[in-house]
Amino acid sequence: MSKKIQVTVLGATGVVGQRFVRRLAEHPFFEIAHIAASGRSAGKRYQDACEWRLDGEPYAGFGEHVVTDSGVDFSFAPVVFSALDTDVAKDLEPAYAEAGALVFSNASTFRMDADVPLLVPEVNPEHLGLLALQRKQRGWSGGILTNPNCTTTVLVMALAPLHEAFGVETVLMTSMQAASGAGYPGVSSLDLMGNVIPFIKGEEPKVEVETAKLLGRFQGRQVQDAPIVVSAMCHRVPVLDGHSEAVSVKLKGNPSPEQVRDVLAAWRPEPQRLGLPSAPVVPIRLHEAENRPQVRRDVELDAGMSVHVGRIRRCPVLGIKFSLLGHNTERGAAGGSVLNAELAKLKGYFD
Amino acid sequence: MSKKIQVTVLGATGVVGQRFVRRLAEHPFFEIAHIAASGRSAGKRYQDACEWRLDGEPYAGFGEHVVTDSGVDFSFAPVVFSALDTDVAKDLEPAYAEAGALVFSNASTFRMDADVPLLVPEVNPEHLGLLALQRKQRGWSGGILTNPNCTTTVLVMALAPLHEAFGVETVLMTSMQAASGAGYPGVSSLDLMGNVIPFIKGEEPKVEVETAKLLGRFQGRQVQDAPIVVSAMCHRVPVLDGHSEAVSVKLKGNPSPEQVRDVLAAWRPEPQRLGLPSAPVVPIRLHEAENRPQVRRDVELDAGMSVHVGRIRRCPVLGIKFSLLGHNTERGAAGGSVLNAELAKLKGYFD
Amino acid sequence: MSKKIQVTVLGATGVVGQRFVRRLAEHPFFEIAHIAASGRSAGKRYQDACEWRLDGEPYAGFGEHVVTDSGVDFSFAPVVFSALDTDVAKDLEPAYAEAGALVFSNASTFRMDADVPLLVPEVNPEHLGLLALQRKQRGWSGGILTNPNCTTTVLVMALAPLHEAFGVETVLMTSMQAASGAGYPGVSSLDLMGNVIPFIKGEEPKVEVETAKLLGRFQGRQVQDAPIVVSAMCHRVPVLDGHSEAVSVKLKGNPSPEQVRDVLAAWRPEPQRLGLPSAPVVPIRLHEAENRPQVRRDVELDAGMSVHVGRIRRCPVLGIKFSLLGHNTERGAAGGSVLNAELAKLKGYFD
Amino acid sequence: MSKKIQVTVLGATGVVGQRFVRRLAEHPFFEIAHIAASGRSAGKRYQDACEWRLDGEPYAGFGEHVVTDSGVDFSFAPVVFSALDTDVAKDLEPAYAEAGALVFSNASTFRMDADVPLLVPEVNPEHLGLLALQRKQRGWSGGILTNPNCTTTVLVMALAPLHEAFGVETVLMTSMQAASGAGYPGVSSLDLMGNVIPFIKGEEPKVEVETAKLLGRFQGRQVQDAPIVVSAMCHRVPVLDGHSEAVSVKLKGNPSPEQVRDVLAAWRPEPQRLGLPSAPVVPIRLHEAENRPQVRRDVELDAGMSVHVGRIRRCPVLGIKFSLLGHNTERGAAGGSVLNAELAKLKGYFD
Repeated sequence: MSKKIQVTVLGATGVVGQRFVRRLAEHPFFEIAHIAASGRSAGKRYQDACEWRLDGEPYAGFGEHVVTDSGVDFSFAPVVFSALDTDVAKDLEPAYAEAGALVFSNASTFRMDADVPLLVPEVNPEHLGLLALQRKQRGWSGGILTNPNCTTTVLVMALAPLHEAFGVETVLMTSMQAASGAGYPGVSSLDLMGNVIPFIKGEEPKVEVETAKLLGRFQGRQVQDAPIVVSAMCHRVPVLDGHSEAVSVKLKGNPSPEQVRDVLAAWRPEPQRLGLPSAPVVPIRLHEAENRPQVRRDVELDAGMSVHVGRIRRCPVLGIKFSLLGHNTERGAAGGSVLNAELAKLKGYFD
Repeated sequence: MSKKIQVTVLGATGVVGQRFVRRLAEHPFFEIAHIAASGRSAGKRYQDACEWRLDGEPYAGFGEHVVTDSGVDFSFAPVVFSALDTDVAKDLEPAYAEAGALVFSNASTFRMDADVPLLVPEVNPEHLGLLALQRKQRGWSGGILTNPNCTTTVLVMALAPLHEAFGVETVLMTSMQAASGAGYPGVSSLDLMGNVIPFIKGEEPKVEVETAKLLGRFQGRQVQDAPIVVSAMCHRVPVLDGHSEAVSVKLKGNPSPEQVRDVLAAWRPEPQRLGLPSAPVVPIRLHEAENRPQVRRDVELDAGMSVHVGRIRRCPVLGIKFSLLGHNTERGAAGGSVLNAELAKLKGYFD
Repeated sequence: MSKKIQVTVLGATGVVGQRFVRRLAEHPFFEIAHIAASGRSAGKRYQDACEWRLDGEPYAGFGEHVVTDSGVDFSFAPVVFSALDTDVAKDLEPAYAEAGALVFSNASTFRMDADVPLLVPEVNPEHLGLLALQRKQRGWSGGILTNPNCTTTVLVMALAPLHEAFGVETVLMTSMQAASGAGYPGVSSLDLMGNVIPFIKGEEPKVEVETAKLLGRFQGRQVQDAPIVVSAMCHRVPVLDGHSEAVSVKLKGNPSPEQVRDVLAAWRPEPQRLGLPSAPVVPIRLHEAENRPQVRRDVELDAGMSVHVGRIRRCPVLGIKFSLLGHNTERGAAGGSVLNAELAKLKGYFD
Repeated sequence: MSKKIQVTVLGATGVVGQRFVRRLAEHPFFEIAHIAASGRSAGKRYQDACEWRLDGEPYAGFGEHVVTDSGVDFSFAPVVFSALDTDVAKDLEPAYAEAGALVFSNASTFRMDADVPLLVPEVNPEHLGLLALQRKQRGWSGGILTNPNCTTTVLVMALAPLHEAFGVETVLMTSMQAASGAGYPGVSSLDLMGNVIPFIKGEEPKVEVETAKLLGRFQGRQVQDAPIVVSAMCHRVPVLDGHSEAVSVKLKGNPSPEQVRDVLAAWRPEPQRLGLPSAPVVPIRLHEAENRPQVRRDVELDAGMSVHVGRIRRCPVLGIKFSLLGHNTERGAAGGSVLNAELAKLKGYFD
């Protein structure tokens, strides 16, 4: 029986960090060696360093584990999951990568670097190949692999099979995003209750640029962005977890809603074919009821790893429109990073 | 001193009906003669027939007023405001019109009839001219005038000045609509709390067809629809009052965001020039803060009669996008009907 | 291997009925034979008769099952779970009981009848003995067994061990109750969002009288109410599932908070000793954090069958006060009824 | 025409500070001379120093006013309204008092000091007399006057007439408090949406001790606490503004609900008799509907300065129970302080 790979969780006290710990507590490939956070938490037991904000067993059984300082203690683990904030990630993630770890990062810091894989295993598993380039260019034995912004992740899960089958030309996406996307404490209840906030800092540009990279082609030495025009309008709504997206797309050949549905239903990309532990059996759940998917009722299905599509219909402007839903802190954050690491494992990066 | 015109409020016990009563309780042109509702409420005092659900003085001082039966008692008033449901309006509104009343209706029943004005005074006041045609064709001394669906109303308020200045070619609109749009009791709290519902029955087609009629040209004998392609994606969100809309538009000549802003800021259409009592001084409130307009904070301004525009910016797909907000049960319902009646008054229809 | 006992679910299309179906779909003692509802639903497939409103597998796998008419089709099953409304239960539950079924009812109709067991297995399992009396008096081969109002159920779970250990003299309970307690569609979102409603019809008297019966002593031929004075103040708050209760109690001997905590922690009543399938291992979950239990975070633990107690402290007026929480539609409704049936099974009522 | 008294608002950028500015912008006695905040805001225009979070005119017309540093700039105004945090108030309020200003403070810091008036003008206007003692003991030409915790303020408004008419012996109060009570950003939306939090730091002891002081008797040289036993259980609920309280009281002589209602209805204490500008005409609004008062619908009446009582009924434990409601950031904070200053003005403290 093969030994599990030891991992470090960086930024373990936050909303996404806690989800990393919960996901990795009983993982078939990985086991938690280090729970790391800022100096303020270092030295405390995990249960004293933060309030557990998820359901299920508090601290996923790691309540007694002593938190290490993410900034000074690089106690070696070959895999690092990073839930660090953008500015902190800037210095720390390269430090871990240089020390030899593969850093699976949820931060936006390095996503758009030309030699950093921006990865959704169902969408662009071949982009993993950028890692070799990165190591060579930066002289690292480890490396940094990123997952996209949560809103982008959900979007590309639906676009990828359409791009493959038809070709996506333009996308107009309006999001209605959950509070948890802003971390904790994040959005004040005084701002969000009974309200819609039509702005999320930095979100729209991220969706617009990351989508083109994710759907781009890896050509041995670089990723060439897909020639897709994306327009995003992002909103915060009084929802706990899960981003709803209203999507209009222009597809080549102007396929019918039935053709679009068939393509989404039949999609079984690499993670499903490989049987990655965190991959949902069906990556896109199709809803027939005219009022679904609904975030509160549907988003927790498949441990938040599938995305949901419903109301596929003609768009008078772009051709096809549909309702899309996905879990921002699972598929769009912790679960996405873990799935990336599972892909790297099966592709031999830890052999 | 001129005498006020007597009015009947139909469907006075519902959410919109109560707003009619509150708006008309102290109106410079009109005074309430009859408060009418279904047979179940007839004969009761208004305060016993329904629970008052607005703030301010309960029943707007009409609590002791005895409710008449909208279905049998046509006690004559020259103006009727109708908050009836679609199916009830079908028989009753023509009955009142035939009896000689001008019926200002919030129901969708007759909106798309070729000889019925679908009216927003800031947008298409000249459509009032259809009334002469209607009377002739139907042999009525009264008539039916309608206001659009609430979501459409808010949308055309922003589109009208752009259509006039540049020409609107296509519109993609995603709405996030308040619970009050579904009436009372309307949406169950079990469906709406912490949720987004990506479907509102009949809403999207209404927005798509009504917009073209509203922005159409009245040519003496008919309205020719504007050649505008509209795509709507409508959602219910946990908000009490006020519809938020994310709007992308393709305008002729591809104007800049600054040009769009200038046009919206300068717009002073007929109701503002005439000084209609319910018309807001400024029909479109422009917001500079990047996170405004916000429905809970902004929608009650100007008694809910102005609409709000913010975040005017380039749309990579259609050219221009912006955030839009308006009050669904005031501007989009009761207030809109009253404004229509005020326009008819100043245009001499009650002389 | 023993055969499972066939059951009928009455009122299966509502919020509680659906929870009955989900709980019984894979039950070790029982199997669903009939899914029954009003004539309007009869003859339809379950999935066509109602919208599934729980998470997990839709219709718990019974979507294709054809609904029978609860009012005319008494197709025999020895156990009936009733989620009927009070007034419908009045005629139907006796009809099933007379036909030979043991009816486990969630309706309030017969709860306070002197010969009807009002049962919470952890609290008063010996009250099952009333059934013999009921059968004799009413000439039934079956019978009616009830579970209390949801708010009462949660309350007596905490009071029972205190009554046993010390004796409860007076109780002052303020509840903050979830929307689901009112059924579906139940409370309008327009009434509940951002609001507290200080009244729930009939709730306070139910809590006040049912508590005394539940904690009463069964003396062979009747239940003598416990001499406890209860005062309830019931509120509806914007919460989906779970009732929070602020409880002050006067206990004999004026025990300390620590003594109270020890008694609650040590309590292992009959369902736990017997290992009833739906009984939580620990009936009362004690919380040490000063801001727990919290309904949204804690109430789903143990499939909603345990109750939660926190903040046990001195009450300057009555002696002891604490925070209490329980699941209204599981422990307080469907789960409670199923637990009652499990107790009856192990006590030999189906042999 | 008499000149207005100049005032300083301390902590003007927060939730309560903004309400001070809005209330004082058009006040008949006072005019704003200085808007002060922490060093971080000092030197900025008010509109640049904070986001305006109230409705109505942004910054109440003071958007261009330059913010002074509350900690170093004691530019003299004879009246200071303080919305400072407890720990900041500790040093600053005495500094202003020593400099000669009367400081009307919303902070809890000095409330329980024996020589500091804890004041609700309807309840204990004579406690103003403590000020002379304070000045003498502390050698100040100014002084500090406080208003109670928001929850306490609402409670004593209802208790005062009952104490006067009958004598209050014990009180058991369960509160359901709004998010705004925690300031801004205050409670995270991730904590509050769909939840009830059964704990508010420091709140219960404040209610229990402040009530006794407020209802105590001023005897020339000191206030003797009223011999009332109060027990408070405080909760945070998903409400924006307004605290709901469920109150049970033991009154001497065990009056009937009708007698209690009559006393509350007839109550016209000193601020109403004097006609203080911010005093509501009717201090206690009585509700007859069985489901009122409701916080979202009722709390803004009378600019938030009246409190609301409904559902007066027998309590089986203490004798009388009722539902109580009041505005936490108006009556319980900014409005309360302003009313205190108005009382001081009419009592000649600024002559």
